[in-house]
Amino acid sequence: AIRYLSKRRQERVRLIGDMLRQEGFDLVLLQEVWSERDYSDLKAKLGGCYPFSHYFRSGVIGSGLCVFSRFPILDTLLYQYSLNGYPYMLQHGDWFCGKSVGLVVLAWGSRPLCPCSCQLHAEYCREKDAYLPHRLVQAWELAQFIRHTSKAADVVLLGGDLNMHPEDVGIRLLRGWTGLRDAFAEAMRFEGCEDGCTLIPNNCFTVKTELLPFPLGIRIDYILYKAAPSFTVKCEELKTTTGTAPGMDIPFSDHEAVMATLHIRRQGQAADGNLGTAELTLVDVVTEARTEVGVGLRAAQRQRYSTGRMAVLALLLLLLQAAAALGTLVGLAAGQPFPKLSFSLLAFFAIGILLLATGLHLFHTIEVKMLQGTEEQLRMALRTLQEHP
Amino acid sequence: AIRYLSKRRQERVRLIGDMLRQEGFDLVLLQEVWSERDYSDLKAKLGGCYPFSHYFRSGVIGSGLCVFSRFPILDTLLYQYSLNGYPYMLQHGDWFCGKSVGLVVLAWGSRPLCPCSCQLHAEYCREKDAYLPHRLVQAWELAQFIRHTSKAADVVLLGGDLNMHPEDVGIRLLRGWTGLRDAFAEAMRFEGCEDGCTLIPNNCFTVKTELLPFPLGIRIDYILYKAAPSFTVKCEELKTTTGTAPGMDIPFSDHEAVMATLHIRRQGQAADGNLGTAELTLVDVVTEARTEVGVGLRAAQRQRYSTGRMAVLALLLLLLQAAAALGTLVGLAAGQPFPKLSFSLLAFFAIGILLLATGLHLFHTIEVKMLQGTEEQLRMALRTLQEHP
Repeated sequence: AIRYLSKRRQERVRLIGDMLRQEGFDLVLLQEVWSERDYSDLKAKLGGCYPFSHYFRSGVIGSGLCVFSRFPILDTLLYQYSLNGYPYMLQHGDWFCGKSVGLVVLAWGSRPLCPCSCQLHAEYCREKDAYLPHRLVQAWELAQFIRHTSKAADVVLLGGDLNMHPEDVGIRLLRGWTGLRDAFAEAMRFEGCEDGCTLIPNNCFTVKTELLPFPLGIRIDYILYKAAPSFTVKCEELKTTTGTAPGMDIPFSDHEAVMATLHIRRQGQAADGNLGTAELTLVDVVTEARTEVGVGLRAAQRQRYSTGRMAVLALLLLLLQAAAALGTLVGLAAGQPFPKLSFSLLAFFAIGILLLATGLHLFHTIEVKMLQGTEEQLRMALRTLQEHP
Repeated sequence: AIRYLSKRRQERVRLIGDMLRQEGFDLVLLQEVWSERDYSDLKAKLGGCYPFSHYFRSGVIGSGLCVFSRFPILDTLLYQYSLNGYPYMLQHGDWFCGKSVGLVVLAWGSRPLCPCSCQLHAEYCREKDAYLPHRLVQAWELAQFIRHTSKAADVVLLGGDLNMHPEDVGIRLLRGWTGLRDAFAEAMRFEGCEDGCTLIPNNCFTVKTELLPFPLGIRIDYILYKAAPSFTVKCEELKTTTGTAPGMDIPFSDHEAVMATLHIRRQGQAADGNLGTAELTLVDVVTEARTEVGVGLRAAQRQRYSTGRMAVLALLLLLLQAAAALGTLVGLAAGQPFPKLSFSLLAFFAIGILLLATGLHLFHTIEVKMLQGTEEQLRMALRTLQEHP
């Protein structure tokens, strides 16, 4: 829902509000609510059935994340991923959104419940996915954030647009490293789009050409959960919307909504049978993720080098010009050798290139640092997995 | 320790390494180790007595944070503050460092220990401290990060250069909201600079004029700690270095090192007597912090407005020029009314201003969002404090 850009935005926000009021969920996690006015409208409309809500602010446009809840919100925390695409990829715009994960702590019964709402970097081209290393860094940071913040939580819920197919290395890393389970895989009943897809060709807002290799659509929006040893969570039912909203000619959004009915119960003792095999595959997943991050690291290092070289060349050109101008001034040359206009145009051009290349060089330097940091953390994780199986 | 800039850097890093090897601490938290090569040198030197170490990467230059430990490091997490000064304040340079808090989880006995190393935005002018709102946002984010990540920890340690005097609102907020205690205030024995100061006029690397109002120096580096209810932590001894290193003509660093001997013991039940009064003053601290953040918010909103206006003016100038040029081209004007050189120089000037003002406008937009977000969180914290005293 981008103001002025998204089609029939206000109508759809109204539809979403009506639907949420009708259904009366316990908890609603929304993504891509870019406009704070849309959030305020929803809040005013839903005040009766969802008395507690929070909007996470970040980046130029905002995080787009918000939460509506029937239970009191005790605390919140926003974690912004360290990498999120490139500022010069204006047409993709991910960089400006400050994609993040938002954690809320709910007063649920006598104990807190920790739902997170999140969104990872979009995939624009599956065959040549330049953003895969960034998305992997985000998946790793998301997993680490959940591990560190959920240690005292009885139940952790994660809902959001992960922009990853169920078999992708990022989602296997996230699930393996945190122990989160996929509500779609665990659901006792399912109702909705085939294979649980959430981006379907049947939705009039999706780009049909992107979905050509996937005639049924793709599943990239998830509800994941895990419980402390003394609790069990079961997914009794999972539903998705199916394109067009009931009685209307448009869908609620380009993604289908995912709705889960979870049954949470306190129990005596935990039973975790297949930990051994789980850790064996986890080693593979972490290794695979590390390889992909390594590929991204080398690409970033190349870009850092080439932007640095361009900045140096622009600086040399400027120095050359300065020397020539100085030469003319002190009368070394026999007169004005260059036309003034093109000389100054060239100087401005060189200054522009110098500034741009320096900015890009700094940006890719940060990128290299973050990719190196993640690679090292993955290496540490591998060592821990191998030493304490 | 900035490469090429800091005085006698390599010598001092060598001195620090020697001292750490001699003293044989359990845990060392270092800040401002900007060069990864210095970290590698220290790591190679200290491998024998501190077999475990971690360097936190972030920002263009890095976070400067690293940890050396006698206990195995199980896990790490880096949290970057959302605000950290202004990129155009090149002389202060904080923005480029990506100031952050780094958390490590140590295998300590049978249970984990969570020490954090951190650094907040520097204070360059106490009377007219333009960075106070940013530092307050950082103090709040640091407090929230510690609260959320330390729920399952028995003992939390925080060590670092907080760039705040002991009575400043930021440090009162951090201590009040997390329950961290100040090792200097609790220490049974103290040895070192008077009043525990860590930035003293006696140190040849400090800027004397900045310390003129404080003849003894200031205390801005801290070791803070807290324990879960079933544990007690006592600070048996606190020491600081006192300027010049023993037997040398230079100190280790511009800040004095803080060294604490902590006695950690498991106990039956926790006794927390003065919780009521603590929460009463906490309300005052949160209110004060909210006021300061509000002041910063209004300043940021003014800057966002003025940079936006400048961008619009530059755009108008460009459009005017384009119209004039077009007019000349289609022959509306009676000839070339402007000299070509100054015309194109003016155009380049306008483009430069437009780009710069747009960049600044985006930056201040982020700043406004983050300050708003923090103000709202502080409001939520106040409500929680008042409702559940």
